[in-house]
Order: sequence, then structure tokens, then C-alpha cells
Amino acid sequence: MSHKIVFQPSGIKGEVPKGDTLYQAVVVMGLGIESLCGGKGTCGKCRVKVMEGYFNDYDIHSSAENLSPVTAVEENILTALEIEEGFRLACLAEVKGDAVIFIPPEVEKGSQVIVVEGIKRQFHLYPAVESIALELPPADLKDNRGDAERLGDAASEKLGCEVNIDIPVLRELPRLLRENGWNINALTWGGREIIGIAGLNGPPGLFGLAVDIGTTTIAAYLCDLHKGVVKATASAMNPQGAYGEDIISRISYCRNSPRKRRKMRQIVVQAVNRLINDIERETGIGPEKIVDAVLVFNTVMHHLFLGIEPEYLGGSPFVPGCKEALDIKARDIGLDINSSAYVHVLPLIAGYVGADNVAFLIAEEPYKKDAVGLYIDIGTNGEVDLGNKDGLSCTSCATGPALEGAKIKHGMRAAPGAIERVVIDRETYEPSYKVIGKEEWYPELYPTGARGICGSGIVDVVAALYMAGIIGRDGRFKEGLGTPRVRRGSSGSMEYVLAWKEETGLQRDLAVTQWDIRTVQLAKAAIYVSAQVLMEKRNIEEPHTIVLAGAFGNYIDKNNALAIGMFPACPPDRIVSVGNSAGDGACLALFSRRKRAEAREVARSVRFVETALHSSFQDKYLEALSFPEKK
Amino acid sequence: MSHKIVFQPSGIKGEVPKGDTLYQAVVVMGLGIESLCGGKGTCGKCRVKVMEGYFNDYDIHSSAENLSPVTAVEENILTALEIEEGFRLACLAEVKGDAVIFIPPEVEKGSQVIVVEGIKRQFHLYPAVESIALELPPADLKDNRGDAERLGDAASEKLGCEVNIDIPVLRELPRLLRENGWNINALTWGGREIIGIAGLNGPPGLFGLAVDIGTTTIAAYLCDLHKGVVKATASAMNPQGAYGEDIISRISYCRNSPRKRRKMRQIVVQAVNRLINDIERETGIGPEKIVDAVLVFNTVMHHLFLGIEPEYLGGSPFVPGCKEALDIKARDIGLDINSSAYVHVLPLIAGYVGADNVAFLIAEEPYKKDAVGLYIDIGTNGEVDLGNKDGLSCTSCATGPALEGAKIKHGMRAAPGAIERVVIDRETYEPSYKVIGKEEWYPELYPTGARGICGSGIVDVVAALYMAGIIGRDGRFKEGLGTPRVRRGSSGSMEYVLAWKEETGLQRDLAVTQWDIRTVQLAKAAIYVSAQVLMEKRNIEEPHTIVLAGAFGNYIDKNNALAIGMFPACPPDRIVSVGNSAGDGACLALFSRRKRAEAREVARSVRFVETALHSSFQDKYLEALSFPEKK
Repeated sequence: MSHKIVFQPSGIKGEVPKGDTLYQAVVVMGLGIESLCGGKGTCGKCRVKVMEGYFNDYDIHSSAENLSPVTAVEENILTALEIEEGFRLACLAEVKGDAVIFIPPEVEKGSQVIVVEGIKRQFHLYPAVESIALELPPADLKDNRGDAERLGDAASEKLGCEVNIDIPVLRELPRLLRENGWNINALTWGGREIIGIAGLNGPPGLFGLAVDIGTTTIAAYLCDLHKGVVKATASAMNPQGAYGEDIISRISYCRNSPRKRRKMRQIVVQAVNRLINDIERETGIGPEKIVDAVLVFNTVMHHLFLGIEPEYLGGSPFVPGCKEALDIKARDIGLDINSSAYVHVLPLIAGYVGADNVAFLIAEEPYKKDAVGLYIDIGTNGEVDLGNKDGLSCTSCATGPALEGAKIKHGMRAAPGAIERVVIDRETYEPSYKVIGKEEWYPELYPTGARGICGSGIVDVVAALYMAGIIGRDGRFKEGLGTPRVRRGSSGSMEYVLAWKEETGLQRDLAVTQWDIRTVQLAKAAIYVSAQVLMEKRNIEEPHTIVLAGAFGNYIDKNNALAIGMFPACPPDRIVSVGNSAGDGACLALFSRRKRAEAREVARSVRFVETALHSSFQDKYLEALSFPEKK
Repeated sequence: MSHKIVFQPSGIKGEVPKGDTLYQAVVVMGLGIESLCGGKGTCGKCRVKVMEGYFNDYDIHSSAENLSPVTAVEENILTALEIEEGFRLACLAEVKGDAVIFIPPEVEKGSQVIVVEGIKRQFHLYPAVESIALELPPADLKDNRGDAERLGDAASEKLGCEVNIDIPVLRELPRLLRENGWNINALTWGGREIIGIAGLNGPPGLFGLAVDIGTTTIAAYLCDLHKGVVKATASAMNPQGAYGEDIISRISYCRNSPRKRRKMRQIVVQAVNRLINDIERETGIGPEKIVDAVLVFNTVMHHLFLGIEPEYLGGSPFVPGCKEALDIKARDIGLDINSSAYVHVLPLIAGYVGADNVAFLIAEEPYKKDAVGLYIDIGTNGEVDLGNKDGLSCTSCATGPALEGAKIKHGMRAAPGAIERVVIDRETYEPSYKVIGKEEWYPELYPTGARGICGSGIVDVVAALYMAGIIGRDGRFKEGLGTPRVRRGSSGSMEYVLAWKEETGLQRDLAVTQWDIRTVQLAKAAIYVSAQVLMEKRNIEEPHTIVLAGAFGNYIDKNNALAIGMFPACPPDRIVSVGNSAGDGACLALFSRRKRAEAREVARSVRFVETALHSSFQDKYLEALSFPEKK
């Protein structure tokens, strides 16, 4: 038997077993409230207020009667007026029914902080790892408790629950207690385990590591847990790429070979450990000072990083080995941070919607918004979410790697030498383009040294070819346009020469082929139809906003993307790019337990739609391959 | 707020927080009861009966009113007669006051088993690691829970609490579930973590390892957890001996050197791992099949094995770094058993009364007996416990290694060539002695090849010298006895020649010196006074029984020990030797969670007496150096 509890002003909500105290509910939902006595009802710090009435937003009828009766202790500590107004001590009030509870600002732990990496985001700084000062009575012949029991008793009293001590800490405990005169700072994780001990002057800072492990790239963020800021970042290619470019080929590589699966795990863990080294060189902050970590990844990377058999992700019903959030000792996965630290793994949603999408959602918080937004993360695999505070649905779409520049004849990553912007004259069919690393555009810049086309350039060139009438709505090249740039290529199919050999850094002309255009059509149709299915299920004609995550989303020309029909119609000024939102979400989960609770909640509540199973999917998909009519 | 609960017929008791259910109390106290629904009040299996009235033995007034009122669910499941008789469902009855609860035999989990290693002991077979059969609904597109959640849900339902899955298990879970058609045996630890998965036909057996790590020797016992029997044993010398014979010199060796402390830890862990190898060679049972372990040791060995700083055990107030029982992952201490297994470390009592004494107590169970017994474990350090079901007190005594044959001029371990028995003719002062490995006694056997004297031989020779009048009550050699065997030795002090050079395996006469006799006096006085102080504190003139543990206790001649005043007066037929009782206790803790709960309880409740601080200790000790008057 459980009941709905909503905490205000944060709006954080969840189900709580009958009989739990409000204090326990607060802890479970990743909130923190002041308490000196640890829930014994003696300090009177944890004052909260029951709100009365029906709350439309949550469909809850809240009433003082849905809590256990006011106790004698509360009558003693609270004033008559407070009791009349609905104030309770959270540690004494037990949940007997639904309730909306207001936590006064002076009672809530943590503080509001703004800005994570680039985009401004407001969040509540309340990390899982905290430093608490403890003054212990020295050991003597009368009080001969063991050191661990002495520390555990003091910490339990302060934190209000049983506190374990990790074995590496236990090993150094006797010396550290005595060297610091029994006055120490205990580093606690989740309020229930001591993962470090330092003197009152140390440690100088608490740091955490957020890591976004993509199929192609890995990004790591060193976060200052005291200040709530990102202090350094580092990134690298995912070395698993050597054993398969995409996730399916990596699953195949591991098939029937625990040894290969172990190798895949070890090389990616080593890659993250090298990033930790890089960060130490840059900041001087070593692994021992990193006392918490959050990992996000797609579902296959999740399995390969943790060493979980990925085989069955490759076939229906695409069920992950483990979906819920995990807290694993860093030493158990070989991550080179403080050996007592935990690694928090954000939850997965489905076989093809991973923790990175959950991180995207807790960064963008659609579940707190009135407006219905479409949230799109384009990578080798795309994830599309739709919704607002009334609910969210999501799906995945196999965009393929075209939009990252792969599987395109002259495709390349967004690196110096890549063509990133293209326009084509509608009269002459002559292009003008910009290369990454150069200021001027072709033809002003000549030679350009172009080596290929990256994702944003591919969207541009396809849109430009279509707008100039070089290709039709069906994507086919038109013939007889009278320009040497449109020609039959060596393979016999049509192509458009974007750059002549002489101007490039290549030994041949740089052309966009009929096959390339087809590949882009397949990718954009997949995204479009995924969004369309989610919108139809919700009876929505047009999303209020479109939020684009990922590097690609950052560089894409919105008008060109709309021109080729990549997204449902939406005013361009309501299409926003939010950069590596998954990385931001991982950092937020480091900074705030509340965000971890939100992640659990959203991963459980978001409705996964298997769009490919939708009856009309195939027809819709074929239809979406064409480009929209020109406006 | 907590209340006393006693379970019958086992008599297991403990304190339980108000509001906990009887089911929770059962679990905490290491008992198990049948439940199919996992505490949801639907299966009706967990019927227990509240006993009414005042229970003298426990000083408890028990009443149905000390539990929460009978619920509607119970009224539905139980008959009217059952309710009248005081039956409740343990999962629904909450503790509101003290109570004595009867658990019917058909409801209690586990079974009675007899015999552990040599001595017959009755115990309740209910190991911490169990195998539970689970049939999971296969994953499909409708039920797309992750594999871990699917398994966790099924296990939680069966066990009645949240169940975690250890990461190494998680890694192989997807394959194991599918290869076994979703019907598996889950290996659970403490009813709350899954540490292994096997098909319904496997594993062939569940094994646990009990290890008694002494200052000098290490003994390991491979236990069959299904049958409750010891399957194999192995022993070895503690390799730390190379860095210090006694505990004080090992503490000194580690001083200010975390590297040396690590080394001390690693070599003893390696020694245990070698014993595991030995056992595998003997039995074919490999490390992966060993899924649980219990460790016992004295307090310093505890610290050195776990790697805890031992420095402060060497000085007052002799407080351990950690006293309570620990459950540590085997992989975190490098023990080479199943990597998901836990190692259970029995609790300590004080700086010089370790987990080995706790194991001794749970094997002998003085806390269940009416008669007041004296429990003595003689090693390099002696521990003495006194008491019965009304309470226990204990102390440690620095016997030194004399009784193990060390620090004696010709002392040696109990090995072939050691003199183990001695009598001396009261007229001729001629000895007759027996050597380990030979059937005949000297002088019938000649030459004897004697190489030294072991512990039991030392007690014998001192008693014989005293009884023959060769030494006085104060231990001094008398002069002018007219035998060449009593002479002034090379160092100038007196000695008794027990064996002439020609008959020995040595290059010189084998003599017992004045110094040797003094050393034995110091040791026996320490034991005697420790017992005396405990007895005085309890107002007891004579213990009902004396229980001797350890190899020495096994071989000692009781009459000679009494003759030199090693123990308080006690009829010899009530002095019993129980062998390696600490090892038995470790095995019992492997076989029964109840024993682990008893260990926690006894470690907390036994009263440690620092005999050396006792005002009259010095006087008593000096007095006890003399031998008792001859009878």
C-alpha cells in the first residue's frame, strides 16, 4: 500500500509506502532537509507544512488527516499556531494517504545554482557525496567502543540512519582519528556510507566525474561538487570503434566470447581512465580526489562498459540486461577514481533508448513544462521524445550514421577540412561553401583544401540541391541542366560535383552522389516519422518547440533541415539547439540527488513507443522519404 | 524506542525497534520462517503464537497487547480458535512492547543437525547463502522489464525484501536466463542479494569456508552448506611469523609503514588462498563453488588480515579499529573464493579478546547453560570467560608462549621428537618420559632421540619436579639432593637434566632450567589470577566446569595442571578439553545465521574485565606464582 506525496515548491513527487515518515520520503526523492537529531523528534528542525485541498496539477486531495496524528513531542516543540497552520515534524509524521507537503526554504538542504557547461540551467546543489564534521569522544578505558563503532554512532546520529564504513576507510581509520584529535570530516555517500575521512582542514575540495560514453566519442567532465561548476572537460574517441563502427557490429564482435566482451569493457574503461589522467595533468586534481561519478550512455554502450552480455539487445524484444539506475563501487568496474567512491549509472528506458536520453530529459525537464515539446537527439542512433508535464513518450529511430558524415561518399567528421556550409545558386548551379578552419567561403577562398563534407554540410547540400531544382522531390537528379557539375559518375549513377579536384585537398573531384542523397533521405525520414507517430498518438499537430541535442543539432541549419523535411513543421525560432545535453544531464546528476530521483522517475514513467510496430509505419516512412513541397 | 522479543523454542532474543514486524525481528535474529508471499499477508504461512504471562528467565511480561491489533487479513486467514490461542501472522504483527513468541516447528526454516568436526554439537542448519528456484515470465514486447528487474521482482516477492544483484552476476544474467529457459536457481546471500545464478540442475553443491587465523597457525575448513558437515580441512603456519613471532612484534613491524602493513595483509591472505588450493586438490571443489566464508582470529590477527592499522592495539586503552561483525566482499580482501561471495567476520570483544573467543563461546554456548563454567583458551595469549545464561564476563591474560613450548630453553612445538609426558620417581629422582612418535617410554626406549619438550611435557615436568620435592613451592631448586640430574648449569643457575646427551638427538644434555620453571610459573599464575578475578567479581568459589580449548588444552594432563595451580580448584572429571573450539564456532557460523546473531549478541553482552587494572591484581599475581600446597 503506497500513497502519492508531492513536495513543494520543488514539485518533486513520488509514491511512498504507507507508514513511512515524511523524512524518509524526502530522502528517497533526493531532497534533503535539515535535521540535527537524525529523525528522533528532538531537534525540531524538520518543520514542514501540509497543504490542504485538491491539487489539480497532481490530481491529489491533500489533507492533514492523511498523516498520522500530531504527536505529544510535536505539541511540545511546535507552537499552537504552527500546529493549526498544518506544520509537522517530518521525522514524526507518517504517511497514511496522499499529501502535498511544503518544505520551507530555511529547512531544505542545498542551494540553487545556475549554469552547467554552456547553457544556463538552474539546479539544486545537493550532491550524493557530502563532507560532515564530527567531533568524537576519545577512546578510553571506560568508553571502549571500537573506532568504527564510535564513528558510526556519531555519523548515524547526525544523518538519521545506519551508516556503514567502507573497508579501505576502515583500514586507515585508527590513525586518522588519532592524528586529527578525534575531530574529523567524514565523507558520506548517500547519507549512509562513509567513503573517506579527513582532518577538519581537508579535503580541499570535493570533485565528481560525469562521463558521456557515446558509440563514437567519450566526453568527461570534472565537476566541483562544492561549487556546482564544471571545472574541466576532456574527450576522446571510443576505442571500441576498432572492433565495429556501429553498435550492431560491436554486439556481433562479442558474440559467444566472454573474453572479447571483457576486452571491449577493458578498453573503454581504460579510455575513460586516460581522460581522468588528462584532467589531472590539466587541473592537478588526481583520481583520489574524485569521490563520485555519473555515467550516461546508450543502452549498448551501457552494457559494453559494465561488461553485461549485449547479445540480446540485437533482437526482439530488445530487452536490456538491466534498466534501473545502479550504484556500483568504482573499484568493481575498474574506474580509476577514489577507490571507495560509487559510480552512479543513470537508468535506461529501452533497448534503444538509453541513459543518455534520460540525461537529456533531466537537463531539459520537459516534465516540468506546460508546452509540449519535441526533444530530438541525433547520433548514429536517434532518440525522439515528446511531451510535457502531463506525460512523455519516446522512441528510437535508426538514422544511421549519415548525419554524422559517415556512409556518405565524401563524408567526414566535423574537423578541419570538412565542408560545413553550402549554398547553390539557383541560376548557375554554382556552389559556394565554407570549410571548417577557414574564414572565407569558396570561391573567394581558392584553393579551399576541402577534404570532405560533415553532417551539417550534408544537410545543407541536399537542401540546396533540392531548392535549386537539381534534384526533385523524390531526390532524383534531373538531367539536361547544362552544368558540368551534374554528371554521371564513374559508377554510372548521377552526382553533383561540389568541389573540383584542383581546389580540394584530394586527388579527385569532391562529389555528392545519388546514393548519398538517398542515405540522407532515409535518415531524415526516420526522424520525421518517429516524431509523427508520437504526435499522432498524442493528437498533436505541431509541437510547441523542438529541442535538438548533440553536436549535430548544434551546427545544423534549421531552415535547411525543415526544407528537406527532417522535422515536423515548427516556426524556426522555436527550434533550439542545446549542445551536449546528455553530458549536462550527467553533470546535473552529480550535483543533485534530486536529479537522480527525477531520472528514476522519468525513466519509469516515460512511455516507450516501438514506432516500427505501428501499423501505418511503413506507409508513413515511404511517404516521408520525399522532400516537402517548396514554399 | 525498542522492545525485548524472545523466540521460543530456540530462546533466541534481542531488541527490536517499535513498529517492526515480528517477521523483521525473525530475520534480524538469524532465524528464518516460511513465507511464500514475502510478508504481504497473503500466504498465511508465517503463523506464530504469542505467549502470555511473566517469563522469569527473561524478565519479560509478554502479552498479545504488546503487538499491534489483529488485522482484518489475519481474521480472514486464521481460524477463530487460532486467534483466541494467540496465533498471529508474523508479517502483520507489529512490535509495540516486550513479547515471547513461539515459532511452531513446521514454520521455522532450516533443520537440526549434529556434529561439527570431532565434537558433537547440535545446531540449526540455516546458512546465509541459499539457493532459491525461480520461474520468470519470459521477456516479450509487452513485458519489457530489464532482465535484472524481472529477476529482482521475482526474488523480492519470494524473499519479502528488496533484492540487489551483484555486478559479476549481472554481467552474465541475460545469457543465463535465456539458456535456462527463464527457470533458474538464484543463489541469495542474507536473503537480500543475488550472488549467483545457475540452471535448475545446478550448482551441484554449496560450499563455505571457515578459517581460524591464529598468531602461529591457520586452519581452514571446507563446509558443505546443504548437509551441514565439514568436508575437508587444511592448515599451515601463519607466514607473518617471519616478521615477528608474537603479536607485539608484528605490530612493531608495521609501525609507520603502510607498505609493510599491506605486505603483512597480503602474505596471510595468500596463505589462506594456498589452503583453498590444497582443499581443491583434495576434494575437486574449486574456489568458484565456495560461496560463503567466516573468519575468526584474535584482535591483532583480525586487523592484520583485514589491513586495519594495528598500532593502537599495542597501548592503553587497547581499542580495536572495529569491533562489530563485518560482511565484506571476498574480492575486496583478495580472498580467492567466488568473487560475489561475502566474507563474514565474527565480532571482537576487546583489544585482547578477539573473534576467536566469540567463536569459542558460540560453539560452547555457556549463555544457554545453568551451570557456571570457566572457559579457557590457551594460546600465546590466553582468554578466560566465566558465566552461564545469567551473564558472561571475560578477560585476557598474557601467558606468553611458554605453554606452547617457546621461551623454554629446550622448548619446541608438539612435533615428532618432542617430550610430551614426564614422570619423576620421588625416591631416585630418575625420570621416565615419552617422546611424540614413539610408543615406548624412557628408559625402556633407549636412545629416545628426544629433541626438546613441548607444552604438555613442560607442565608435566614442572609438576613432577614439584611433587618429587626437587623444587619447592616457590619454584626454586633444592640443593644437596644427591642426584647428578640436579646441577648448576653452564650459566651458573640450577637445572634438572631430563635426558642425557647420549640418549637424545642433540649434542648436549636436555635440561629444564630455573628460568624455564620461572616462565611456567608466570604463565600459570596469569591464567589462575584471571579466573580468580572473574570468579570473585561473581562471588563464585569454584566453577562447575572448566572447558579447555586449543591444542594445548587437548594434550595437557589435568591433574598436573591442577597440581601446579594453573586453574582454580575443580574436580578433574569436570575439566573437559574441546579441541579447536574456535574453528568449530567458525563452522557453526557458516551453517547457521542464528549462530551469527548469537555471536553479535554475546560479543555485545559479555562483560570485559581488565584484570590488570583490578586493585589487588598485583598481590594476587605474586601469590599465584607459588605452587599450591601438596595434597
